[in-house]
Amino acid sequence: MAAMKWWGWGHEDVSFTHEDKPELAPFIQKALQLDVTKPGTERPKELDELDVPDPVLPDALRGALEKAVGAEYVSTDQLDRVVHTRGKSLRDLVRQRRGDMPRVPDAVLRPGDEAAAEALLAAALEADAVVIPFGGGSSISGSVEAEPGEKRPVLSVDMGRLDRVLDVDPTSRLARIQAGVFGPELERQLGERGWTIGHFPDSFTHSTLGGWIATRSSGMQSDRYGDIADLTRGLRVVTPSGVLVVRPVPSTSTGPSVREMVLGSEGRLGLITEATVQVRRRPPERQILGYLFPNWREGLAAMRDIAASEAEPSVTRVSDAPETAFSFATSKAPTPLDRVKSKALQLLLKRKGWDLEQMCLSFIGYEGTSTNVKLQRALTERIVKRHGGMSIGSSPGELYDQKKFDTPYIRDFLLDRGAPADVSETSAPWSELGNVYDAVRAAGQGAFRELGVPGYLMCHLSHSYHAGACLYFTFAITPSGERDSLEEYDVVKSAIQQAFVDSGATLSHHHAVGTEHARWLEQDISGPGVRMVEALLHGTDPGANLNPGKIVK
Amino acid sequence: MAAMKWWGWGHEDVSFTHEDKPELAPFIQKALQLDVTKPGTERPKELDELDVPDPVLPDALRGALEKAVGAEYVSTDQLDRVVHTRGKSLRDLVRQRRGDMPRVPDAVLRPGDEAAAEALLAAALEADAVVIPFGGGSSISGSVEAEPGEKRPVLSVDMGRLDRVLDVDPTSRLARIQAGVFGPELERQLGERGWTIGHFPDSFTHSTLGGWIATRSSGMQSDRYGDIADLTRGLRVVTPSGVLVVRPVPSTSTGPSVREMVLGSEGRLGLITEATVQVRRRPPERQILGYLFPNWREGLAAMRDIAASEAEPSVTRVSDAPETAFSFATSKAPTPLDRVKSKALQLLLKRKGWDLEQMCLSFIGYEGTSTNVKLQRALTERIVKRHGGMSIGSSPGELYDQKKFDTPYIRDFLLDRGAPADVSETSAPWSELGNVYDAVRAAGQGAFRELGVPGYLMCHLSHSYHAGACLYFTFAITPSGERDSLEEYDVVKSAIQQAFVDSGATLSHHHAVGTEHARWLEQDISGPGVRMVEALLHGTDPGANLNPGKIVK
Repeated sequence: MAAMKWWGWGHEDVSFTHEDKPELAPFIQKALQLDVTKPGTERPKELDELDVPDPVLPDALRGALEKAVGAEYVSTDQLDRVVHTRGKSLRDLVRQRRGDMPRVPDAVLRPGDEAAAEALLAAALEADAVVIPFGGGSSISGSVEAEPGEKRPVLSVDMGRLDRVLDVDPTSRLARIQAGVFGPELERQLGERGWTIGHFPDSFTHSTLGGWIATRSSGMQSDRYGDIADLTRGLRVVTPSGVLVVRPVPSTSTGPSVREMVLGSEGRLGLITEATVQVRRRPPERQILGYLFPNWREGLAAMRDIAASEAEPSVTRVSDAPETAFSFATSKAPTPLDRVKSKALQLLLKRKGWDLEQMCLSFIGYEGTSTNVKLQRALTERIVKRHGGMSIGSSPGELYDQKKFDTPYIRDFLLDRGAPADVSETSAPWSELGNVYDAVRAAGQGAFRELGVPGYLMCHLSHSYHAGACLYFTFAITPSGERDSLEEYDVVKSAIQQAFVDSGATLSHHHAVGTEHARWLEQDISGPGVRMVEALLHGTDPGANLNPGKIVK
Repeated sequence: MAAMKWWGWGHEDVSFTHEDKPELAPFIQKALQLDVTKPGTERPKELDELDVPDPVLPDALRGALEKAVGAEYVSTDQLDRVVHTRGKSLRDLVRQRRGDMPRVPDAVLRPGDEAAAEALLAAALEADAVVIPFGGGSSISGSVEAEPGEKRPVLSVDMGRLDRVLDVDPTSRLARIQAGVFGPELERQLGERGWTIGHFPDSFTHSTLGGWIATRSSGMQSDRYGDIADLTRGLRVVTPSGVLVVRPVPSTSTGPSVREMVLGSEGRLGLITEATVQVRRRPPERQILGYLFPNWREGLAAMRDIAASEAEPSVTRVSDAPETAFSFATSKAPTPLDRVKSKALQLLLKRKGWDLEQMCLSFIGYEGTSTNVKLQRALTERIVKRHGGMSIGSSPGELYDQKKFDTPYIRDFLLDRGAPADVSETSAPWSELGNVYDAVRAAGQGAFRELGVPGYLMCHLSHSYHAGACLYFTFAITPSGERDSLEEYDVVKSAIQQAFVDSGATLSHHHAVGTEHARWLEQDISGPGVRMVEALLHGTDPGANLNPGKIVK
């Protein structure tokens, strides 16, 4: 797995374009007053233009690290260091493009096994160096960047060589897996044996098992498979006091759960080298169907009623009207037949008395034996119908399923044209979701007005639970040009985050805290909650060598 | 809710007897060489025979506590203090009966609201007193007893006045509930509104919501409803740095989860005053059916295959052959018709070629709409049949359902006759359960042999998960009379616990650590795991005022 672009998302040879999507340029023109048909003018700097300080790596430390992981796996290469400087938050992308790099890691280390990870941590602690674990580098919360004023040597530990499925226990449906493996490679190795982990976050192609665990990740099929917090049973973590071994037992009452302390720990407790996770046989049948609801209220209510019913779909997702409009605008050039169908559909919906501006697109997935898929679908569609929803068949769902991992590339496309776009997601009880949504809409629109910039804000519900769901917001602005665009971005992002915590929701559903969300932590988990997290992190890492500054100071 | 007997389990007017169970006395005679038809001679001491030291409660502290909770709720009554001295582990029962009470709490406090709990904790910290939260006092892990050498004032905080369901949110299916409420009262208040929490541990009648949370409890229907760790969403906990407030969001990625740190914390982080928990509508239909399997291996395999299938029963439980024999022996006097039926059944089973000594009794439950119950039952019974199992209808299941909360009384019945009996439970991956079972059988039998005493050891599987299940062992011995019976008890209990951790299983599935299991903690969660738990507990409670000595030193 090659590293991502140093200045943007994903593979070097993949990028987002409006050219094969005839509706998109007019849509963005209307939404953001931005003409994307003009080539982008805000290109990133060239690598050799960057002002990257020389690495500071005392000889004794370098020697110890080379002994620990092997000399060829201690890299001070400039590109390597630049790629490992930070993750892929909007703020990260902008600063990388600008060459704004106050603290580049001094070396990138690539341990090949747990013993190497242990030895490197010992060497780092001995030299009072900072150790930052690095999985896919897809963090959008600032979780992999050194603190700007860090005076100690900074070591980015790339876990990518630990990329093997070590064992599958078919009886227990557990797989022992090295933590540095990327999503696609993990699924390939599991798939060869007929298994899947069923964890598909949007970052899937560029994120790792260890990263998912360190940030409490969720995937599009988590309704059925569980979040990574549910999937992860056993763990091996190299900590300052040795290798933490969590047994892969299904449930235990051994005091406050150490397993759960590692989940979401963002590298502050140690280097996750291995996990034993729940896997399932690849399902004999799998469907993701598209549905339309007359409006957001009905779409939300349908998802809530499905969660309270005996139906158990594998995916539940509904977009609000703005996101529905965006989805339609990103459709690729339709065939003449598609056009006819689409006209017929519009006619039908108008006859039903729908306001097409309010219409909401939904995807619901079903998995398992053919009998079960039929049953789940029948149970679910009864509820969909009760809320005025209608099926639009399998092609939209298939399309979504295929292109979902391409979405992150759009930020670079917009940044080339100077427009920052990003996501913020939360979760709340079902009874509060309507209020949270309204509060975030108001906050976002308020921020656009305050800045006097064109902005777009859209949302979908995903990840249904017993008692609530995730609301996932995406926003973009065309900056005024009067201020630093990052400042304007920050006004919007902050308004949304503040609306989350003010309305009783959480600061993040599955993107973790890092530095981006740290300022809302106390408002979310309360002062005593912060004290408990501090007690755990500071007590485990008294020298503050492990990814300091993330989650809490 | 009246407190339990100071010397034993449960209500003053309830006790276990063999008299209505014609097979039981002969069974125990054979299993333990113990004649239970003779009245017990080992009665507990009388209350006034106890040597209870006067309470040590400095005037300033007493004044502050009276101000905090109200003078009538600061009790130094002898019975009150004796009842709150410890929980109901076998060791607890024996020592209470003997009047062996090295450290009786100096006062029992009963806060009526969260503000009172806050004030009492502040007063206790100010005076450097020890605070031990007390729910139902049903702990069998030593979680509510002061350390024997404790020199500081010891305050047992009985949460029983906090016994109300405050609110039910029908849209989110969440109930906000005070933590001191006992199981039956909780279900009564929820039931009035048509809801249930679905949490039914064996201790249900004498344990509280806060106690379930503090110990990571499981109930007989947890397969469907989830363990208490799944059910608990929001929390309010009075801690040394103020009131911890965990929002009742369905899922979040706010760093290591504070919610999960409170689960299993056994009073070491603070006083749990309130929780917001998942509730469900009472199901329209509910069945618990009995099944028989030809042997333990097939019973285990059936439970595993059910967990891996699309069937979702609400209860899965199978007893090994010794527990099956015990269950049959505790049947109440059968009618002549029962006898005929039972003979016919035996005949049938012999014709199938079953070895009746190996036969295993199982209970499987189904819940929901009538359609769903039928479907789940059909899916499940297909698997049962594949493993040679057969249905024996609803009466055994109903009987089990009715009498399950009476089981704990049997320990007092046996202790009256000098025989200690207790339980130890664990969990492990499906692939390991057979080995764990064999290892524990060998360890238990080895301990009986080593001691030269008659002993009985039996087991059931309960709580099926994706990747494994709980094995729940019950054991009893007739002591030799040559040593303290507690010493002999300890040899057996320790052998079983050691077999758990040696075979890769966990030290406890749902009874927590307390002091009883603390010596196996490091073998279970590894040294670095213990360090992390210590960091959390010591950092949150630097003065070691909150239930010191439990889980870790």
